[in-house]
Amino acid sequence: MTKLKLGMVGGGQGAFIGGVHRIAARIDGQWELVAGALSSNPERAKASGAELGLDPARCYGSFEEMAQAEAARADGIDAVAIVTPNHMHAAPAIAFLNAGINVICDKPLAATLEDAEAIASAAQASGARFFLTHNYTGYPLMRQAREMIAQGALGDIRVVQVEYAQDWLAEETHNKQADWRTDPSKSGAGGCVGDIGTHAFNLASFVTGLEVDKLAADLDAFVPGRKVDDNVHVMLRYKGGAKGMLWTSQVAVGNENALRLRIYGTKGGIDWAQENPNVMTFTRFGEPKQILTRGGAGSTPAGQAGLRVPPGHPEGYLEGFATIYAEAAEVIRTGQGGDILPGVADGVAGMRFIKACIESSRADGVWTAL
Amino acid sequence: MTKLKLGMVGGGQGAFIGGVHRIAARIDGQWELVAGALSSNPERAKASGAELGLDPARCYGSFEEMAQAEAARADGIDAVAIVTPNHMHAAPAIAFLNAGINVICDKPLAATLEDAEAIASAAQASGARFFLTHNYTGYPLMRQAREMIAQGALGDIRVVQVEYAQDWLAEETHNKQADWRTDPSKSGAGGCVGDIGTHAFNLASFVTGLEVDKLAADLDAFVPGRKVDDNVHVMLRYKGGAKGMLWTSQVAVGNENALRLRIYGTKGGIDWAQENPNVMTFTRFGEPKQILTRGGAGSTPAGQAGLRVPPGHPEGYLEGFATIYAEAAEVIRTGQGGDILPGVADGVAGMRFIKACIESSRADGVWTAL
Amino acid sequence: MTKLKLGMVGGGQGAFIGGVHRIAARIDGQWELVAGALSSNPERAKASGAELGLDPARCYGSFEEMAQAEAARADGIDAVAIVTPNHMHAAPAIAFLNAGINVICDKPLAATLEDAEAIASAAQASGARFFLTHNYTGYPLMRQAREMIAQGALGDIRVVQVEYAQDWLAEETHNKQADWRTDPSKSGAGGCVGDIGTHAFNLASFVTGLEVDKLAADLDAFVPGRKVDDNVHVMLRYKGGAKGMLWTSQVAVGNENALRLRIYGTKGGIDWAQENPNVMTFTRFGEPKQILTRGGAGSTPAGQAGLRVPPGHPEGYLEGFATIYAEAAEVIRTGQGGDILPGVADGVAGMRFIKACIESSRADGVWTAL
Amino acid sequence: MTKLKLGMVGGGQGAFIGGVHRIAARIDGQWELVAGALSSNPERAKASGAELGLDPARCYGSFEEMAQAEAARADGIDAVAIVTPNHMHAAPAIAFLNAGINVICDKPLAATLEDAEAIASAAQASGARFFLTHNYTGYPLMRQAREMIAQGALGDIRVVQVEYAQDWLAEETHNKQADWRTDPSKSGAGGCVGDIGTHAFNLASFVTGLEVDKLAADLDAFVPGRKVDDNVHVMLRYKGGAKGMLWTSQVAVGNENALRLRIYGTKGGIDWAQENPNVMTFTRFGEPKQILTRGGAGSTPAGQAGLRVPPGHPEGYLEGFATIYAEAAEVIRTGQGGDILPGVADGVAGMRFIKACIESSRADGVWTAL
Repeated sequence: MTKLKLGMVGGGQGAFIGGVHRIAARIDGQWELVAGALSSNPERAKASGAELGLDPARCYGSFEEMAQAEAARADGIDAVAIVTPNHMHAAPAIAFLNAGINVICDKPLAATLEDAEAIASAAQASGARFFLTHNYTGYPLMRQAREMIAQGALGDIRVVQVEYAQDWLAEETHNKQADWRTDPSKSGAGGCVGDIGTHAFNLASFVTGLEVDKLAADLDAFVPGRKVDDNVHVMLRYKGGAKGMLWTSQVAVGNENALRLRIYGTKGGIDWAQENPNVMTFTRFGEPKQILTRGGAGSTPAGQAGLRVPPGHPEGYLEGFATIYAEAAEVIRTGQGGDILPGVADGVAGMRFIKACIESSRADGVWTAL
Repeated sequence: MTKLKLGMVGGGQGAFIGGVHRIAARIDGQWELVAGALSSNPERAKASGAELGLDPARCYGSFEEMAQAEAARADGIDAVAIVTPNHMHAAPAIAFLNAGINVICDKPLAATLEDAEAIASAAQASGARFFLTHNYTGYPLMRQAREMIAQGALGDIRVVQVEYAQDWLAEETHNKQADWRTDPSKSGAGGCVGDIGTHAFNLASFVTGLEVDKLAADLDAFVPGRKVDDNVHVMLRYKGGAKGMLWTSQVAVGNENALRLRIYGTKGGIDWAQENPNVMTFTRFGEPKQILTRGGAGSTPAGQAGLRVPPGHPEGYLEGFATIYAEAAEVIRTGQGGDILPGVADGVAGMRFIKACIESSRADGVWTAL
Repeated sequence: MTKLKLGMVGGGQGAFIGGVHRIAARIDGQWELVAGALSSNPERAKASGAELGLDPARCYGSFEEMAQAEAARADGIDAVAIVTPNHMHAAPAIAFLNAGINVICDKPLAATLEDAEAIASAAQASGARFFLTHNYTGYPLMRQAREMIAQGALGDIRVVQVEYAQDWLAEETHNKQADWRTDPSKSGAGGCVGDIGTHAFNLASFVTGLEVDKLAADLDAFVPGRKVDDNVHVMLRYKGGAKGMLWTSQVAVGNENALRLRIYGTKGGIDWAQENPNVMTFTRFGEPKQILTRGGAGSTPAGQAGLRVPPGHPEGYLEGFATIYAEAAEVIRTGQGGDILPGVADGVAGMRFIKACIESSRADGVWTAL
Repeated sequence: MTKLKLGMVGGGQGAFIGGVHRIAARIDGQWELVAGALSSNPERAKASGAELGLDPARCYGSFEEMAQAEAARADGIDAVAIVTPNHMHAAPAIAFLNAGINVICDKPLAATLEDAEAIASAAQASGARFFLTHNYTGYPLMRQAREMIAQGALGDIRVVQVEYAQDWLAEETHNKQADWRTDPSKSGAGGCVGDIGTHAFNLASFVTGLEVDKLAADLDAFVPGRKVDDNVHVMLRYKGGAKGMLWTSQVAVGNENALRLRIYGTKGGIDWAQENPNVMTFTRFGEPKQILTRGGAGSTPAGQAGLRVPPGHPEGYLEGFATIYAEAAEVIRTGQGGDILPGVADGVAGMRFIKACIESSRADGVWTAL
């Protein structure tokens, strides 16, 4: 199986989400990054491309140029990842869709509803596909929750409680990530509500299959001088009669990235929190609460699909492993360092441990030197 | 930066840990798998290599052949990952070390102490490096704990409580993973004590910096007919006077992969569990317990090194993201499926949500249709 | 110190909260129950009084008679506890206040605002005191939270999240407790919002010291045929600019008695849940989250006042102890049973355990029979 | 039902466990404290008795005198609670048993095995009953666990992990409670192992029904100069083949009163921790872990016996309630204070809240002033 070829718009030096997209694209070995318009600043675009090992010929100065050139190449990209601030989603998305190139775009879709609808039209007209990285829908237990609800495990949904709280903007803050998110010309009119509120909104719909009919909202900008909301209270009425509450905040001190979803129906309820994503509780009315784990006992086909590691090996296990590999690479490249890495002495120590355990146990537990 | 070239011994079809090594090697984009002796069965070796997209010329029938051939190539591998059952570690490790090729080897080091010492001698004699994948030492909070202890945050260590409990072997079980682990000719004389006990032993030493002086052990094989231990109780005496207990089990019903480490010193104590690895509690004597998060407030340089995502984005966040990418790849390859993936309609819905929130809030919270 | 004399209105056979009040009154040994109008049914009133060991002369057929008679006695009650359904609070409260007798009344204050105001007038006019058992304000950590906020530990309050969810009314249910709570002629117009929503509302105000200015609410009766609300969503605007959300439900499957309060200010945040009331987290912005325990490190004077047991002995420890006493009483009364109670054999076994531990340890850990 | 009459030996001013026994005796209203030999210091004995409202004629200067006098009275005590330090258990226990008076004695049974056996002989010879307050056996979930195991829910027990860790003696400490516990002439030869280790040992036996055959132990006194153990590691072999580990410590920084019991059998496993005693997890092999709550779904008859409050109202709920009563008593006695107590204004505010919620909801969620 050959890898698909990926391009990227945005994600140059100093970016956050671009790096996340690149790692995500590498994990399963299905994508290869080959082209980019990594920055609107041409010098930074070149430098960023060099760092990533891109062919300089495929480090473009603009997304327009990139869309044209890649569409014209026989070995052109299979998809482009758009990882720019919100106000810079629509133009490249439309350009690549028009060029017949698949798009993977970060959320929210755009800075304005008008831009969003323009993208939707372009997607409609294009033969290419459009994917929005509402990444929380990729957690196995969220897939499982959706499947359980679709199969009636909760009965008719009555109440949805969803919240997404952070605290990193609790005070006036200036850095690349904060600046565009609190500038309505870049983020759109919504601040917190767009940046993370849309994740909460999307996840609740994804899992329940319900569509919001109406909402009543109360938005605040608590930090003096802030031009966009940083705390959002919403009451929701879903079509069909379910009710919901949505809270999202970037000033809730003590919350790092606290996305939590609770759903209650006539027959059951579930509770899941992103910060410990390998666990979800599920209660059938009148029975003990169950702790469902990713891929563990009681998991459904949707919850088991695409697992990379077994239950109990939390998602993240792979990253601890990857750190060993990354550091080994560094040692091999440089011939230096690596003191923190386990090596042959640790291995021998482990063998002495096994041997001593067995000997001690055979000798009725006598204290045994290693 | 060009990628390092990786070879693999073991890890063919049906294997578990080989796949983990491959993902781990890909995450940071520093390694490229180019060669393998993936199975001792030549046909399976070929087929496995084809699945992984290896050049057939570098799919070897034996590790001996591979070590020789790769050492001879100008573009030979930079390192080999050995991911075979325990009894098959020593021979390839020694062969590659003798050929001057770096080795990344799964744990425990070998099936016997004699084999382990032979590897140690070969590593000593070789110019190449040897890495043992005690992967739990790669968790940022374990790095941080080690650093905190080295800097005296806990004072003098008095007590170490380490445990690693699973339940997947609570009954007689037959499959590829269970079979070699319960066969002393493949696993070595230790069963559970070697398979996961060595992780617990290693992690406690890694974090505390302490060396075990003596131990007293009580090993059981609870499942009738089992030839190796499946439950292990050990009391530890560390050099310098600290004491410890180590429990490891593969028959403790209700435990998936419950590695937990607690360390108590004259000034403080810590508590960490692998199943929620982004959190560690730390108590200074007489002060409130603190919840330290991976990379969060109070984290140390060692705990911040090499972070891929910010605090609150649990390790595993990347995997949810990666699933979106993997499934997008599938849609693009086949032109089918992808209904579960968020797309442009979700994006437009999100924009409508933002707009409705802002409008409702501006209109004093009036219920507003989406 | 002589005990105060307590009377009770309501709380006869089959009641729930009356028994709770009686236990609460006994714990600290400051009250003695001496009189009652325990039921509106005279026979049940007599029988209930006999069960509780009341003097038959002080088992009254009506609260009016009781108020008069007790006010006239030299040894009359010091206070009356009113533990009837909501619609039966106002008349007895006013009668006892008018008679100059202190009142301890269950919540909510009454079935209607008019009744509540009538009680308030009577309290104003009376020399006697009126206490409302918003019992959750009695938890030490809630007292501590209030004190911390008053002292500025959280800075200016921005956001209040309070919720109180149960599931016992998720289906149509008929029993004494459910019936009056779902009958608007007894509970008042509010169902869930009055029964438990007022606790949430009260606790948030108690802890923050803030007063609600306005609210926007969405009430539902999800169970077909139910005449009062069973799920309540409210957005709150506090005087001074803080915002809040309040959710209360009796149909949220998987919640037993899930009262939770989270408060976020400019400098810090707290999180407390009633089902594990001995623990509260507290985060100063930019610092690690702390786990504060009842009376533990970092506790304040308000959090330490009136502690009955030390930190780590959860509230409830006393009840395990009390069960031993209650069962010992039963054995002593009847001369039978008590097999489950620890006795002298357990004590000797414990001593053998201590002796064996010491001997084994002195003999370098040799296995030692008990 | 008349109350039983209780006497007490020990428990005078400055004592801890005596007060706990008195509260426990009051909760269910079955006991009345009427006599005491509250201190070996006669003046303190008198003063302590006066504080507790005892008849001075029944405040004795010695337990010998008390045993004789109470046995001679027609209205003599039904039982005596012995709450002295360990070395002062045997003499009074034997005196009261010999006088035919039931004994409720704190644990451990005595300071030496010889004393313990003397008590056992006296109990054997006496017609009176002897109860040892291993109070943790009084928790409903521990009763339930015992019943579940007896009924085979866990299958054959294989592994017992029990631990009881505190940190209050992590440094050299001097106060009444610490002093006698670290003085072998008062505590007996065991320090931590006797003080809390016996609780762990007893609870494991109580729940499993298993008897220890042999143990291997490693005891330490980590604090310089300490004369008794403060950290204890024990491996256990139960009759019938189960194995166990027991850890108890009073120097484990970050642990307040961390008694935890885990039991694993051929079919299932359970996990319970005293600091959150209303919850126990239970796993049947191959099924999702269940969260069992005190008296909640899935609870057994033994777990439901004697419940004072419903599920979700944690044990401790009663104590919050009791604080309201205690403080109301103070206000009534003194005519002062009580500002922290909820009163009529809170009640009216609650009624305004209910009314505003209903009005806002009826008006489609319009913001409504309170």
